[in-house]
Amino acid sequence: MKNLNDFTGLLHHLNRIGIALSSEKDLNRLLDLILREARSFVQADAGSLFLKQGEGLIFIAAQNETLDSGERDKKVQANYLGSFLPLSKESIAGYVAVTGEVLNILDAYHLPPEVSYRFFRTFDEENHYRTFSILAVPLRIPEGEIIGVLQLINALNEKKEPISFHESFEELVCSLASQAAVAIRNAMLLEEIQQAHLDTIFRLSKAAEYRDEDTEVHLRRVTGYTMVISGKLGLSSEEIGLLKYAAPMHDIGKLGVPDSVLLKPGKLTPEEFEQMKRHTLIGAKILEGSDQKLFQVAKEIALSHHEKFNGTGYPYGLKGEEIPFYGRIVALPDVFDALTSKRVYKPAFPVEQAVEMIREESGKHFDPVVVKAFLDSLEEIQQVKNREDQSSVTII
Amino acid sequence: MKNLNDFTGLLHHLNRIGIALSSEKDLNRLLDLILREARSFVQADAGSLFLKQGEGLIFIAAQNETLDSGERDKKVQANYLGSFLPLSKESIAGYVAVTGEVLNILDAYHLPPEVSYRFFRTFDEENHYRTFSILAVPLRIPEGEIIGVLQLINALNEKKEPISFHESFEELVCSLASQAAVAIRNAMLLEEIQQAHLDTIFRLSKAAEYRDEDTEVHLRRVTGYTMVISGKLGLSSEEIGLLKYAAPMHDIGKLGVPDSVLLKPGKLTPEEFEQMKRHTLIGAKILEGSDQKLFQVAKEIALSHHEKFNGTGYPYGLKGEEIPFYGRIVALPDVFDALTSKRVYKPAFPVEQAVEMIREESGKHFDPVVVKAFLDSLEEIQQVKNREDQSSVTII
Repeated sequence: MKNLNDFTGLLHHLNRIGIALSSEKDLNRLLDLILREARSFVQADAGSLFLKQGEGLIFIAAQNETLDSGERDKKVQANYLGSFLPLSKESIAGYVAVTGEVLNILDAYHLPPEVSYRFFRTFDEENHYRTFSILAVPLRIPEGEIIGVLQLINALNEKKEPISFHESFEELVCSLASQAAVAIRNAMLLEEIQQAHLDTIFRLSKAAEYRDEDTEVHLRRVTGYTMVISGKLGLSSEEIGLLKYAAPMHDIGKLGVPDSVLLKPGKLTPEEFEQMKRHTLIGAKILEGSDQKLFQVAKEIALSHHEKFNGTGYPYGLKGEEIPFYGRIVALPDVFDALTSKRVYKPAFPVEQAVEMIREESGKHFDPVVVKAFLDSLEEIQQVKNREDQSSVTII
Repeated sequence: MKNLNDFTGLLHHLNRIGIALSSEKDLNRLLDLILREARSFVQADAGSLFLKQGEGLIFIAAQNETLDSGERDKKVQANYLGSFLPLSKESIAGYVAVTGEVLNILDAYHLPPEVSYRFFRTFDEENHYRTFSILAVPLRIPEGEIIGVLQLINALNEKKEPISFHESFEELVCSLASQAAVAIRNAMLLEEIQQAHLDTIFRLSKAAEYRDEDTEVHLRRVTGYTMVISGKLGLSSEEIGLLKYAAPMHDIGKLGVPDSVLLKPGKLTPEEFEQMKRHTLIGAKILEGSDQKLFQVAKEIALSHHEKFNGTGYPYGLKGEEIPFYGRIVALPDVFDALTSKRVYKPAFPVEQAVEMIREESGKHFDPVVVKAFLDSLEEIQQVKNREDQSSVTII
């Protein structure tokens, strides 16, 4: 396939790459796939990807066969990821991004004196690498805009020695780069839309708690804990994805609880507590009747997150596995977060004490399987707590 | 490009088609583009697309150069769109969908006796068309699943006479069909995610109105009217898209209004009305502070949809163009829907009477520009009303 004389074979290959790139929805996996396919297409030892952001280029992905397979310090290499290049003709990637030209460089260390760009050797020096040939092409979307740059480094001959990139590769790699550009834009758009959806759920669910003392941070923490525990329980990434969207809606039914109950400062009377319990049923009513899996899961959680494993919960007093699994999961983070948060009627318990209280309730309030997953992931739970507590400082 | 000897040229062309298909997000435009590109690629007079749905194939798109450019009755042709074919080997498309084989047929009216499929002449007869050659290929996604069938009909020679499809086209058209399959799946996924987002907004905004007499149908009607008026005002499709998501959240701030005010059956005291007015400010607070354009627009609308053009509205008493444009737009549908709906304290006014009341308020309550756009689109407004009133029967 890599025989340049087999041009038809190469074009076929290119078509297959295009299809593969269009199919990858995850941006990070896509960037990796682009580099892998592009490198294998032209037999390049290394490659890197830059994406335009504002007035610069972000160094977003890199692969290096020699370094990745060697014993060298991968940390030095990783240090470069995320670094920022100005959009100027002084660097190779910058030049390509600004002009849209293809650069096919024979030896990065011996550039013609008249060119505006230079090669920065820092990476090579820190990694004991020697860059010879570079093929740098723009990532151009069909509308003409350049969204980034693909750099292929050190074409290899059959003996794995660096040679230059054959001229006839230029057009093929440009075509591959255009396919990559569209795929990147699509993946980013998808990510953006999914993020917008998630933001909507948090904002409007937070709004539902407007009348309550709970806050958006509570929702974020409960959702974060739920995802950690679900991961530990071995749920599929599809299921974890659903929980990410569904868990924040668990208390949406509080909307239907009268102010006189929801906002009452003192202890609730038995009648008021009965009214309060109805938030599970009201939530289910708000969320029911959708064809979408998301709302089916959200309804299940809203309805069952106050059931207890020993049958003493509400609204139905379900017991053990009668309680939907997702409800048994969310029940724990919801209580854990209430314990570790300050409320009008109680101080915030320290994490250690809250963990002990949860452990105590294994088989009583909570499903022992869920408690075990929780206890096995305390470190990640603490990380989520730190992250959300920190972000709350700026958000609220 | 259509010279079969220029195989390299064809492959290049195919690559460009792949990029174009990946860039099209709108499913209907995408289906059209696929047919157009595939037909021009192999010089076919006509083509059709079928997509799998459940246990059948839906006839989803069709093009026919001869018929489309002629004087014939296009309605007969359009009648076939949306029709359902069983997933069986008895039809040509069904055979390809079931077996995954390519069918390259010389003359549809003279099929070999041993084949399981037959050609249905109804369409030809009703349209006075004669189908000769057919190239039918599966739409296969990379994971292997067949999601539909692409049929190309009547390859033409330079004199526009029907000939058979050259064998060497088969592989190229299969490759094109694979690109089309991925693009279709991506467009459907995007549509699904956007639909899910919209559902979330409606469900949770409806939930916010749980305590109020307003319903999801009110939100849907107001949003529908808003889009009609915005279209008449010449807003861009991007802006109309934003309004579609933002308008349903206009009353989200009612969450912050106490039950004693929101649910009071009788007339509000001046103090209570002041509390009620605060739903605009509370809505803005719930929606503010986002980087997302959607929430910026939603906030603007929540805050300003009760301002009046003559400065007598609330919360700020803004006047004329001081009021954000989107707020001036949504103000009208919100009132129009209230007028034409039954409330505890009033009957539903007939549309004609409500229209007159709106016209009266041009330059007073409403921006005259918005009133004019509304009056110019009464027919579409009525259609939206009928559609949403009808759908409410099944939804609620």
